[in-house]
Amino acid sequence: MVKKTLKINGITRTVIAPADESLANVLRRQFGLTGTKIGCGQGQCAACNVILDDKLVRSCVTKLGKVADGASVVTIEGVGSPDNLHPLQLAWILHGGAQCGFCSPGFIVSAKALLAENPSPSRDQVRDWFQVHRNACRCTGYKPLVDAVMDAAKVMRGELKAEDLMYKLPPDGVIWGGKHPRPSAVAKVTGTLDYGADLGLKLPEGSLHCALVQAKVSHALIKSIDASEAEKMPGVAKVVTHKDVKGKNRITGLITFPTNKGDGWDRPILCDQKVYQYGDAIAIVCADTLAQAQAAAAKVKVELEELPAYMSAPAAMAEDAMEIHPGTPNVYFVQKIAKGPETAPIFEKAPVVVEDDFYVGRQPHMPIEPDVGFAYLDDQGRLCIHSKSIGLHLHAAMIAAGLGVELDKLVMVQNPTGGTFGYKFSPTMEALVGAACLATERPVFLNYDYHQQMTYTGKRSPFFVNLRLAADKDGKLLAMESDWTVDHGPYSEFGDLLTLRGAQFIGAGYDIPAIRGEGRTVCTNHAWGSAFRAYGSPQSEFSSEVLMDELAEKLGMDPLELRYKNVYRPGSTNPSGQAPEVYTLPQMLDILRPKYQAALAQAKAQSTATVKRGVGISVGVYGCGLDGPDGSEARLELDPDGGVTLYTSWEDHGQGADAGALGTAHQALRPLGLKPAQIRQVMNDTAVTPNSGPAGGSRSQVVTGQAIKAACELLLAAMRKPDGSYRSYQQMVDEKIPTVFDGKWTAPATACDENGQGAPFAVYMYGVFMAQVAVEVASGQTSVEKMTLVADIGKVNNRLVTDGQIYGGLAQGIGLALTEDFEDIQKHSTLRGAGFPYAKQIPDDMEIIYVEEPRPAGPFGAAGVGELPLTCPHAAVINAIYNACGSRVTKLPALPEKVLAGIRA
Amino acid sequence: MVKKTLKINGITRTVIAPADESLANVLRRQFGLTGTKIGCGQGQCAACNVILDDKLVRSCVTKLGKVADGASVVTIEGVGSPDNLHPLQLAWILHGGAQCGFCSPGFIVSAKALLAENPSPSRDQVRDWFQVHRNACRCTGYKPLVDAVMDAAKVMRGELKAEDLMYKLPPDGVIWGGKHPRPSAVAKVTGTLDYGADLGLKLPEGSLHCALVQAKVSHALIKSIDASEAEKMPGVAKVVTHKDVKGKNRITGLITFPTNKGDGWDRPILCDQKVYQYGDAIAIVCADTLAQAQAAAAKVKVELEELPAYMSAPAAMAEDAMEIHPGTPNVYFVQKIAKGPETAPIFEKAPVVVEDDFYVGRQPHMPIEPDVGFAYLDDQGRLCIHSKSIGLHLHAAMIAAGLGVELDKLVMVQNPTGGTFGYKFSPTMEALVGAACLATERPVFLNYDYHQQMTYTGKRSPFFVNLRLAADKDGKLLAMESDWTVDHGPYSEFGDLLTLRGAQFIGAGYDIPAIRGEGRTVCTNHAWGSAFRAYGSPQSEFSSEVLMDELAEKLGMDPLELRYKNVYRPGSTNPSGQAPEVYTLPQMLDILRPKYQAALAQAKAQSTATVKRGVGISVGVYGCGLDGPDGSEARLELDPDGGVTLYTSWEDHGQGADAGALGTAHQALRPLGLKPAQIRQVMNDTAVTPNSGPAGGSRSQVVTGQAIKAACELLLAAMRKPDGSYRSYQQMVDEKIPTVFDGKWTAPATACDENGQGAPFAVYMYGVFMAQVAVEVASGQTSVEKMTLVADIGKVNNRLVTDGQIYGGLAQGIGLALTEDFEDIQKHSTLRGAGFPYAKQIPDDMEIIYVEEPRPAGPFGAAGVGELPLTCPHAAVINAIYNACGSRVTKLPALPEKVLAGIRA
Repeated sequence: MVKKTLKINGITRTVIAPADESLANVLRRQFGLTGTKIGCGQGQCAACNVILDDKLVRSCVTKLGKVADGASVVTIEGVGSPDNLHPLQLAWILHGGAQCGFCSPGFIVSAKALLAENPSPSRDQVRDWFQVHRNACRCTGYKPLVDAVMDAAKVMRGELKAEDLMYKLPPDGVIWGGKHPRPSAVAKVTGTLDYGADLGLKLPEGSLHCALVQAKVSHALIKSIDASEAEKMPGVAKVVTHKDVKGKNRITGLITFPTNKGDGWDRPILCDQKVYQYGDAIAIVCADTLAQAQAAAAKVKVELEELPAYMSAPAAMAEDAMEIHPGTPNVYFVQKIAKGPETAPIFEKAPVVVEDDFYVGRQPHMPIEPDVGFAYLDDQGRLCIHSKSIGLHLHAAMIAAGLGVELDKLVMVQNPTGGTFGYKFSPTMEALVGAACLATERPVFLNYDYHQQMTYTGKRSPFFVNLRLAADKDGKLLAMESDWTVDHGPYSEFGDLLTLRGAQFIGAGYDIPAIRGEGRTVCTNHAWGSAFRAYGSPQSEFSSEVLMDELAEKLGMDPLELRYKNVYRPGSTNPSGQAPEVYTLPQMLDILRPKYQAALAQAKAQSTATVKRGVGISVGVYGCGLDGPDGSEARLELDPDGGVTLYTSWEDHGQGADAGALGTAHQALRPLGLKPAQIRQVMNDTAVTPNSGPAGGSRSQVVTGQAIKAACELLLAAMRKPDGSYRSYQQMVDEKIPTVFDGKWTAPATACDENGQGAPFAVYMYGVFMAQVAVEVASGQTSVEKMTLVADIGKVNNRLVTDGQIYGGLAQGIGLALTEDFEDIQKHSTLRGAGFPYAKQIPDDMEIIYVEEPRPAGPFGAAGVGELPLTCPHAAVINAIYNACGSRVTKLPALPEKVLAGIRA
Repeated sequence: MVKKTLKINGITRTVIAPADESLANVLRRQFGLTGTKIGCGQGQCAACNVILDDKLVRSCVTKLGKVADGASVVTIEGVGSPDNLHPLQLAWILHGGAQCGFCSPGFIVSAKALLAENPSPSRDQVRDWFQVHRNACRCTGYKPLVDAVMDAAKVMRGELKAEDLMYKLPPDGVIWGGKHPRPSAVAKVTGTLDYGADLGLKLPEGSLHCALVQAKVSHALIKSIDASEAEKMPGVAKVVTHKDVKGKNRITGLITFPTNKGDGWDRPILCDQKVYQYGDAIAIVCADTLAQAQAAAAKVKVELEELPAYMSAPAAMAEDAMEIHPGTPNVYFVQKIAKGPETAPIFEKAPVVVEDDFYVGRQPHMPIEPDVGFAYLDDQGRLCIHSKSIGLHLHAAMIAAGLGVELDKLVMVQNPTGGTFGYKFSPTMEALVGAACLATERPVFLNYDYHQQMTYTGKRSPFFVNLRLAADKDGKLLAMESDWTVDHGPYSEFGDLLTLRGAQFIGAGYDIPAIRGEGRTVCTNHAWGSAFRAYGSPQSEFSSEVLMDELAEKLGMDPLELRYKNVYRPGSTNPSGQAPEVYTLPQMLDILRPKYQAALAQAKAQSTATVKRGVGISVGVYGCGLDGPDGSEARLELDPDGGVTLYTSWEDHGQGADAGALGTAHQALRPLGLKPAQIRQVMNDTAVTPNSGPAGGSRSQVVTGQAIKAACELLLAAMRKPDGSYRSYQQMVDEKIPTVFDGKWTAPATACDENGQGAPFAVYMYGVFMAQVAVEVASGQTSVEKMTLVADIGKVNNRLVTDGQIYGGLAQGIGLALTEDFEDIQKHSTLRGAGFPYAKQIPDDMEIIYVEEPRPAGPFGAAGVGELPLTCPHAAVINAIYNACGSRVTKLPALPEKVLAGIRA
């Protein structure tokens, strides 16, 4: 131990801790300053930034022993408070800088240090600063953060007033379509929002820390598990193994298509017979402290018989490959597509045919917050599990039987969540903490480190696609033949659904009269497949959007004009055979055309012998909702003070569930003239909030939005007097009129059949992407200089939210195109190793043009937004690289060596 | 567990905790809001006040289960912060409302709730509010707190500006003699000062909580200790017993007079052979959580053979009483006094003789903060013990051999301390946490509950005094004969020294030419005797000051005039035969006389048949220092920025060590023209601060003050250039002149001999007390309506500090006179049970008149202050009761039934 006197946020504190303890842990665990977040824990994300004696440091890698006695430390709590926001915090709110908010404290502290050094930075200096200091954001694409710093600097220089950075309610009181800050913004920018790791530190005395015993191989038989030595280690309450799990010890995928050859019960909570992938949990050590749990976990002896590991779909499909789940073939599901007439005859006769193979890989989600959760038994004897779940009721149903608890004895709560981007559509640790809590009957807390986050949460499932397009001489598409193989890792949950996405979205956006194809889901030993933003479409549309460029080249047509000729128009149907609900793609291409042409001219003008510039475009389409008649529920209660309380399970990845629900309810309740603050929200606790379904597939704004609207309409109808005015709460009570209403809504959609035909989504989102890139000829290094998205997401609820979603989605698309991968389990298990895009990898110049075509099935005309920007931006980048230098990369990521190989070829 | 959403200081928080957990623990342990202090833990002190949904509650007795979901909680952290102080906090600083500061958050939160209900309260309404809400303060006598509330209310009503409540440095820059706020004030009033219990919560993960296995009988032989079952309990790291203590397992009193029949090694760290008093520690259970430690402590089996318990000195002196420490007689020390000629002949001939028996009992210190400490091994392998110790170097020497560590491997640190009033002159838990740390090699934390605080820390030792005075017909004292018996409990430390105090202070203030007497220290099984403010003098002087009134009555003289005739004048000597250093008592009585006469007239006028009013006076004298040539050290370092750093072990009970040291150094360094903030202090850590001796006996301002002054003078001399100007730091370095200086000082005093004769103190404090009381005739209930103290404490360093010390000392004197006791171990083991004085028991009207006679041996003429107000205020109260109703109470406390008995007699 060392004793130091530190001046923390201006307050002199005595600190006693081991010299090798990190400053971050000291601040968080010992001083409750949980505004300082720990993301990667490896100095790669800077969520833990603090200012130490006027110098910005990453506190997770700053050892207390290296901190000078008497040093001053400024954390986010010392920058400003909810009552007294710093200009940076005001600007962060104004510009929507806090989406999930997990990186916000680290960025704001960083910006404070920057402005102390340089009160008048340029935008590039801000970006350089964030790059050098490794401030990582996965939500915003950085642009809103730079906007915020520039504005805050103006206030600090006296050029603007603090009030100028505050949201003003418009005179008509309408927030729909505006930029109302999300309700959680103040808490996020002040570090006062407790995320899972923060709540875990704030659990009561006697709570247990969990450490996992995990597989370090990818496929093995378990011969024995010996926890006897570990059980005797100091502080250990229990070592939980599969024997302690009272239920079926399996997580079920629930939604299993009848033709699925598996039964969905393939994922163990704690491994019993086999290890199926690297990281699989074999035991949970529950101890009084984390260090004790980790020390004991190292003492659990697991005897394994290693088996051949099938690390990609082709390997698992080999004839001699053993069944990973004995009794179920490794290819366990097949999805066909058959639209219109047979394609073989058309291809035979078609004037122009193109064909290529494509691969979009195992993109890691890389939220800044690693996975975290805890569980306890409440006073009603219910098992309460808090996690980052974005599918609370869904996950309850997926894990209850495995744990051996009745559904009505299981409560699922979402903690404030530092980003998921879809990985939390799958349960991760929910069943683990549930099992540990049931076995110990004490609160248990589990916080993954970043290696665990990377290796033991789901990833985007790679698609191997072979695609053929047939067109006439004018470029009109005649037919498409597709073949896609989905590497879904060892666990089947939603694998069939994902495979269906290939049928729905390969070739989406175009009127293709004849389609034939087949996709398959393959069980492998690599990371299990979980949802990732735009689920299935980046893999599917990449193939058709790059192949469209190949077709254009073959035809000698401009890629934009080829697309313009083929996009949906009245009379078209999408690959599912469904008539699009709106036809805005031609208009969107019309809007883009002059920009595109100017960009091409500029690229040509600015290309040099060493740096080639190019422009690429792509079309992106995604459906809002789960396949078919997706439904949701919301509850609205009139409060005695005339305000309302809205109950939903609109889970929040960071995308802005609170803002979405607020905007929708506020608009629906306009006759009452409520102020935004009068709409209170209770969210994401299955004990009190109704089943609104999971927050995935850009469904929430549409489906839960409609349920909220329905609840609001029921309340308004009940409050409305014959004269058209509205009853007060007291009048409702006096007249014995109910004050609580359940709103429900089901999408007018039908699931696809075995040929992929149906009307699976009532609402779609449409986008046209344009990427402008520069390729360094000598290295193949690509930088994206500008991204443009013409987006039709229907009517916009909250522009701050949709802008932020789009910037962030584009950034992830750039990452997907150029750097991101999780193929090599060790090399790719850190943020930097996996190609996380920092500030300078994302262009400051990102342009969004909205085409707000109202959606008949959307609340107030709205569609969703979150998936659209990640449907196909990567194809635009890849097409731009080709345009720049002639290198066509069809297997992502387009690392410099791949681009370079294409240039040389 | 229950889950609630609470709005804590405006921030929405998810709280998960057992329903029966206290709100205080939730706030402190789970949310790090350690500004909310836990004092008694029983709802009797209100240090834990918070505002719950606009209602003031004591959070230590508010169960989370009873807190409404969605409730708002305001803690001290939500009232204001160091950057942004609330008017109440400003006013608290301005009026010196925070002495130890432990009660300050609870009071400020309480006052905030009051002013929300009543923005314009009268002083009595403020006092009523504090009374009703049980806000307990042991330091201030409440008056400064009421002053602060009244001023803050003015600011809140707009009648004053916040700036009006801020200290302003005088134009001449001198702070000596002024009211500079103590450096710790801001931290205290904002709840940001970490006391021991707060630091304990902020220890690193892996620290152990201690629970004591304690004796529940007062005297017994230990037959066996069986910890085997406890060792197996969950979370238990170790059960530490005497067998685990590597050293002598004894705490030594160190200062043992040669004539002491004991050797000072009588107090076990952990009981081995015997239990000597209720609460004695037999084992320490160290576990990961407090609940685990407590559960396991209940499982330690201790087999005892109970022995007769000697609960007072007479019982232990009985002929058939066994030796409590076999081999040492229960009467283990005798102190004689023999001054001047034999007294027997004088008494035979004296015209007037009075005699009476007196008893001053086992006054409990009752700090609001219960005892607390922790220990750890530092990176240099040193055992570091943090506690409330007010004698760091002393305690190291007292416990090192018992623990079996070398002194250079033992570091003692004082935590910010919520009041001691002397009990921490004895080690309490230092050796316990030390032994536990050495046995477990992990940080260990021990926090007494209030029952432990009351029953297992030292108490004021009762004196049984028989006193005789002889005078001539005019009232001139001729001789005194004294006999005093000191019940020192089972442990001898400083018992001989205390007994000597009887010789030094019985009859102090008066020129008594002939004195004979004998006192003795008796070992008993009641609470061990530890220092208590004014150590020995309240017991000693009570007898002479009440007997002087009896003498006056017998002589038919006014009590003031009798005293006036006999107080020290040039040529007088004190009971030690020493010539007083100043002769201000006549002047002080002259000052008091008109007030006294007016008070008598008023009492007469305002007495009724049911309420009798009266006035009493007394003289109080106390020496500043330890007996004889007391010394101290201080270190001063010139800093590169031209400021200085002052290193002292001037321990702080709450009396204001930081302010005392600052004022002294600032005055000594006036030639440098430093601002107060340029004098930095490092205090109370034996690893870095020199041996300044213990903070007791009002010695620090004199002895350590002189050491500081000496260090300052050394620095000034080194910095002074031939032209009289001063070198800068850089010039000192350039000229290779040292920049660090050790100041040392030793008091010009000599210890007393076996007859109590010597010159034990170089500086004394003198006071004349006046009490004005009202006695309810029907019940005997006494209330003190005003206290006046004419005080000569030499030149005043910091008036805010000395006023505060005096108000608080007077309040403790009222408690000592009327209510306070720790005789009945069970009944008296709570604040209320022990007669703690709340706001309405202390008069709002307390007047201080300073006579600032410079002390030749004091720094800048200063004496001490802390002990003076508690030397003899109780005698004034008792004399006033007699004056009011004719009831003479000579055995304290003067409970209503005792007063009533006197009235009836």
